[in-house]
Amino acid sequence: MSATFLESLDTPAAIVDLPRLQHNIARMQEHMNALGVALRPHVKTTKCLEVAQAQIAAGARGITVSTLKEAEQFFAAGITDILYAVSMAPAKLPRALALKRAGCNLKIIVDNVAGAEAIVAACREAGETLETWIEIDTDGHRSGITPEQPELLDVARALDAASLVGGVLTHAGSSYELNDDEALAALAEVERAGCVRAAERIREIGIACPNVSVGSTPTALAARALPGVTEVRAGVYAFFDLVMHNVGVCRKEDIALSVLATVIGHQPDKGWVVVDAGWMAMSRDRGTSKQGQDYGYGLPCDLEGRPLDGWLMTQANQEHGILAPTRDSVPADVARDFPVGMRIRILPNHACATGAQFPVYGVVGEGSGTQWPRFYGW
Amino acid sequence: MSATFLESLDTPAAIVDLPRLQHNIARMQEHMNALGVALRPHVKTTKCLEVAQAQIAAGARGITVSTLKEAEQFFAAGITDILYAVSMAPAKLPRALALKRAGCNLKIIVDNVAGAEAIVAACREAGETLETWIEIDTDGHRSGITPEQPELLDVARALDAASLVGGVLTHAGSSYELNDDEALAALAEVERAGCVRAAERIREIGIACPNVSVGSTPTALAARALPGVTEVRAGVYAFFDLVMHNVGVCRKEDIALSVLATVIGHQPDKGWVVVDAGWMAMSRDRGTSKQGQDYGYGLPCDLEGRPLDGWLMTQANQEHGILAPTRDSVPADVARDFPVGMRIRILPNHACATGAQFPVYGVVGEGSGTQWPRFYGW
Repeated sequence: MSATFLESLDTPAAIVDLPRLQHNIARMQEHMNALGVALRPHVKTTKCLEVAQAQIAAGARGITVSTLKEAEQFFAAGITDILYAVSMAPAKLPRALALKRAGCNLKIIVDNVAGAEAIVAACREAGETLETWIEIDTDGHRSGITPEQPELLDVARALDAASLVGGVLTHAGSSYELNDDEALAALAEVERAGCVRAAERIREIGIACPNVSVGSTPTALAARALPGVTEVRAGVYAFFDLVMHNVGVCRKEDIALSVLATVIGHQPDKGWVVVDAGWMAMSRDRGTSKQGQDYGYGLPCDLEGRPLDGWLMTQANQEHGILAPTRDSVPADVARDFPVGMRIRILPNHACATGAQFPVYGVVGEGSGTQWPRFYGW
Repeated sequence: MSATFLESLDTPAAIVDLPRLQHNIARMQEHMNALGVALRPHVKTTKCLEVAQAQIAAGARGITVSTLKEAEQFFAAGITDILYAVSMAPAKLPRALALKRAGCNLKIIVDNVAGAEAIVAACREAGETLETWIEIDTDGHRSGITPEQPELLDVARALDAASLVGGVLTHAGSSYELNDDEALAALAEVERAGCVRAAERIREIGIACPNVSVGSTPTALAARALPGVTEVRAGVYAFFDLVMHNVGVCRKEDIALSVLATVIGHQPDKGWVVVDAGWMAMSRDRGTSKQGQDYGYGLPCDLEGRPLDGWLMTQANQEHGILAPTRDSVPADVARDFPVGMRIRILPNHACATGAQFPVYGVVGEGSGTQWPRFYGW
């Protein structure tokens, strides 16, 4: 059934392996259940209602989004508990307030006083409240206020002027740079302790701070205990990818997203197989280039999703991918081994980036043959 | 007018500078006119009807596409002379034949006997003809048959069994690795000479080969004479980008595509400015990383499109970009210099990849305020 479906699709196509997806969703949810915290999956990876619904059916509480368009799309589909986890730009407040007014339980975030004051002013003008969580920086990789910084209380006080403080959140994105379980567990503890400490400082000045939200796929899976944390956010675990495999949190056979491609030519003297999936399909993400194993633009597999040992997509143009042997020797007859018209599946470096290139996912496994739409833009 | 429009848009947004676009289109067309060859612009860069129409209005003859979806979209809008310049996958032949049957003057390409035989078989079965051009490899960077290879005549004969040979084409994509005019002019001559030689070999065995198509933006602009060539293909010249600037074929002030972003926070101790355009907006393309000047994820500019001297987007997450000073010293007060809510424009590494992330272009210049749709997918 799956093979027939995969032969029927136009290439390149994004393929979701349903049993792998379900396994990944169940694995994360079970780990969160064991730790006694809620899971709020980040839907920026998949931007697909069917995946979010599967996450919620498995036990997730609400969703995390990276754009207001995601919030609007998922709210329109009936999901109401939504955290928009990018620091609020003042000009986006009317769009956020419109969601709130329509009944969406939207939470927004901020990490600076100017932004907090803009949120308070917009809420007062609209006669609305937008629950706001304060972004905490626990690993120095991007945004947020460090737990001991004086500005943390300035932002809390600014928001509290309109009773908007809903919690604190942090994202230890530097976990992507690690690759062993001990180091990940240690970073998970840094992430937890920093975020809990920030919440305590806010509470010490008499402001309620009910939510303490942490997470990234690697720290979520590595965390051994999360006292003081109320929820965990993670996104890429639904699909996983080669970057996560290098980080050490999944097997290759857990990777649920692949790109279906067709062989369109060869350069026999170089041992190259040319396919119709280039960087427009795989994305330009080369996340494994700085990791222990560089997978080029992706790892070719057969139609069943089994890696083709000794091959990588080493180069990509817009609509051309070049598969080359990883060994020095050139195969005797690549045109025989990979005839024109043959189909393969390619595992991506980074599922968030590769998924984003496609309007739909073709689903294989139980229910093979269905297509799940995904959306893009802002 | 433009500033008001740029303040009104949700960010991130793709912005096209109309005067720059028109200048770039005119420049390439004038050069082709001077060389006495037709220009068949590659619309994969922009995937936008308004841009293709501007190119045709300036004198272009037909278009080049990288997917059948582009062919279908542009044909539906009234453009009939279309070259699909990726070697034909047999499973795509029904879709190509449907276009032909609907009246599209579609040309396809192939570089191998198996593919050629599949085209002949499909055309015979359909009672149709699909004019087919043979892909020539003149610089070893990707697909194609080298001009002296015996297989060239095998493919020509296979296609000639159904009188399908329409020409030869080549793309010297390795031009992106060069950065001086002499080297580019030399490569343009290699590209020309190889493609003309391939056409001559086909003619020597009695098969007509009317079209000789070469091109890439750098070789097109560097070419000094193109005897034997009938048309040139080029795509990125419409927008240009930082990669092309490093190659030496445009000025920064020619780059017609930028990403509008909003400041959402800071890390003052590091001198970082955080904006709401990450790699989802800029793409993961880091094409300048191996060139003489590495522009990170892009070059920040003011709203008028003037580069902010001493700043680069050095890091990108999905919806976060980090602008950092290129000098060692940290600015005294980044939050004053780049207040939350401030808008900037960011020039991309690679216009084809950045444009692909957006559903529309906001147009500034004459007619500022209009939005041009673009499409994606396959």
